[in-house]
Amino acid sequence: MRPVYLDNNATTATDASVVAAMLPWFTERFGNPSSAHAVGAAAADGVRLARRQVQALLGAAHDHEVVFTSGGTEANNTAILSALESQPGRDEIVTTAVEHPAILALAAHLEKTRGVKVHTVGVDGDGRLDMDDFERALGPRTALVSVMWANNETGTLFPVAALARQAHAAGALFHTDAVQAVGRVPLGLRDTDIDMLSLSGHKLHGPKGIGALYLRKGTAFRPLLRGGRQERGRRGGTENVPGIVGLGAAADLAARYLETERGWIGRLRDRLEQGVLAQIGQAHVLGDRGNRLANTACIAFEYVDADALLLLLDRAGIAVSSGSACASGGMEPSHVLRAMRVPAGAIRGAVRFSLSRDTAVADIDRVLDVLPDIVGRLRSSSPLWRDRAPTFA
Amino acid sequence: MRPVYLDNNATTATDASVVAAMLPWFTERFGNPSSAHAVGAAAADGVRLARRQVQALLGAAHDHEVVFTSGGTEANNTAILSALESQPGRDEIVTTAVEHPAILALAAHLEKTRGVKVHTVGVDGDGRLDMDDFERALGPRTALVSVMWANNETGTLFPVAALARQAHAAGALFHTDAVQAVGRVPLGLRDTDIDMLSLSGHKLHGPKGIGALYLRKGTAFRPLLRGGRQERGRRGGTENVPGIVGLGAAADLAARYLETERGWIGRLRDRLEQGVLAQIGQAHVLGDRGNRLANTACIAFEYVDADALLLLLDRAGIAVSSGSACASGGMEPSHVLRAMRVPAGAIRGAVRFSLSRDTAVADIDRVLDVLPDIVGRLRSSSPLWRDRAPTFA
Ligand SMILES: Cc1ncc(COP(=O)(O)O)c(C=O)c1O
Ligand SMILES: Cc1ncc(COP(=O)(O)O)c(C=O)c1O
Repeated sequence: MRPVYLDNNATTATDASVVAAMLPWFTERFGNPSSAHAVGAAAADGVRLARRQVQALLGAAHDHEVVFTSGGTEANNTAILSALESQPGRDEIVTTAVEHPAILALAAHLEKTRGVKVHTVGVDGDGRLDMDDFERALGPRTALVSVMWANNETGTLFPVAALARQAHAAGALFHTDAVQAVGRVPLGLRDTDIDMLSLSGHKLHGPKGIGALYLRKGTAFRPLLRGGRQERGRRGGTENVPGIVGLGAAADLAARYLETERGWIGRLRDRLEQGVLAQIGQAHVLGDRGNRLANTACIAFEYVDADALLLLLDRAGIAVSSGSACASGGMEPSHVLRAMRVPAGAIRGAVRFSLSRDTAVADIDRVLDVLPDIVGRLRSSSPLWRDRAPTFA
Repeated sequence: MRPVYLDNNATTATDASVVAAMLPWFTERFGNPSSAHAVGAAAADGVRLARRQVQALLGAAHDHEVVFTSGGTEANNTAILSALESQPGRDEIVTTAVEHPAILALAAHLEKTRGVKVHTVGVDGDGRLDMDDFERALGPRTALVSVMWANNETGTLFPVAALARQAHAAGALFHTDAVQAVGRVPLGLRDTDIDMLSLSGHKLHGPKGIGALYLRKGTAFRPLLRGGRQERGRRGGTENVPGIVGLGAAADLAARYLETERGWIGRLRDRLEQGVLAQIGQAHVLGDRGNRLANTACIAFEYVDADALLLLLDRAGIAVSSGSACASGGMEPSHVLRAMRVPAGAIRGAVRFSLSRDTAVADIDRVLDVLPDIVGRLRSSSPLWRDRAPTFA
């Protein structure tokens, strides 16, 4: 039986057509795009086309606004460090409590080692930004506002276009970590105030190890990786040509199927959530149900240990996640759900199901087949469940 | 006719068996190694094996001394910044005038913006390090000595094991940019004092966009990319699993064929050089002829413009390089040959031929067939050639 993979926010399978597009660039058209001969020129052609494909998905005005990186983490780190280094009088960052570690870990490091002041704006119980807190955090020393487009754990979407305008009104740059949003929601960057945006190939059926930083024309910038003059001097290092070609092909696919996929995936996700809630008591959908990614269902099962649940689902051939894969290794409760003030018991039982266009209706039904029994077994072995207070007292 | 590719120091074709090894990791075993389920565990297995393969090629004592990066540039940048940040009292770098821009561009930037003092040790006419200059540059404030293992333009090898001992005697860390050496010369890191070493997949028939930083156990370290806890917290970002698997496979191949290939490639290179020198006057082999990579021939043709020569060779289906591809875009004379005090006229006519195990004897003979005529044509159209002084006055 093929495994049911519902962990697409951790990573997606590379589309077979993306792999096919990449293949010639390893062995036939393997040149270094910086080389002055025909073998190099062929490689540069591949990069040029891919840059236009990513531009199109982003709705960016210019292809040279796309700077290829090794992934979302590098793009995020580059954006933050660049904003600080290119605006000497400004040494504050405004971000949120629910960002990915690729923002928060660097911000904490800069606060500790370089005296950067980091304002971490909170969220409400549905994961929505505290707008008063946000406005108070902005000031004349703000170098960068960095707010994710979509949260990786709950799928909650943030009003980045409006936030970017507010950042600009305060004279700050605006960056968004759109790693979970790119390929899943329309972007139209050209018509926004967004200065920088991060994306990662492997979240949109592209390869791992490739991503991009969108950098609006004219935005002050300092490179993170220094070396050769690649990417117009904005990112040193021989271009990952097959990866770039693959990201371009993945962007092209995502752009063409965005709307149909969103609808289809959303219906599958709703079928999953409704089926779960109908069959399993004391389960709660977390996040902003009216405004989130169509592919993500974050469900908290009270009186269940999510890691045990994950293990039993895994044995049943179903792959899901408890919190983000990036935070794993650590067994700490999710910082996202804590920021939403989800009760500790519910955080302990929170599982993320994340779908993609590879998800079939049979996959959802298999989860609905096995999940009630597994949750029931876990609960019946839990003393907390036996002694629990009635749900509606 | 298949093109004759003699630009393997710019990049190599990915070995077909390396591509084959990578393929399953895009679509079948596509998981995120940090995920706690079986799909993730399979991906982690691939990374684990590849780390051991790279360890074996390096002759490193521990597999966890290998930290995967996006390439040589990231590894170099990480090494330099880490050495400075992890040793607060030390703010000087000792390096050479012939390093790759991935060292020199960052060093210049740090000198300008962070007050880091950079000692740039010179070389002699054969590209050998000035040892007196080197010893004078070392001091109690030296954080890092960074000397390349092999030069990318001339192939000249540096005595890194001895230099590492001297660096340690001065209390400094030692890093080597071994991007051109890995897979081409034996390394045996375990028995050296080298603390850090950079390598890049695409120079050893592996994929582009992947590389590694060797980091000796116990070496003080600060990450460059901050995010998730990947690579034991030393490099954030979802692992490039197919790239890592490909690098592992390439390392495995390189380790197995190192000696036989070196001999074979060296004989082809010597055939090229001897043929060129026998047929073409006023041509000079640059670099340390007694101590260089077996695959590299840097030949200066007096009274010839290397870019014109490159163009005519390209039209004849032969790919070579004038200086390093990484410096291209700029039309400046090679900083490596300038540091060697090669006369300006010879620098202008310097061409790099770089071979690999993909090079056939027929490739060399094709070059020897067409090159004398092309050089002759270029020279006959040059007023400098017509008015030249006799070579041996
Ligand atoms: C000696 C040397 N160091 C570093 C690099 C940079 O490696 P990469 O382009 O893979 O980042 C190169 C080649 O480009 C090189 O020849
Ligand atoms: C919201 C978000 N940002 C950044 C990242 C980091 O991307 P990558 O692992 O490709 O570096 C991830 C996923 O890992 C993510 O979900």
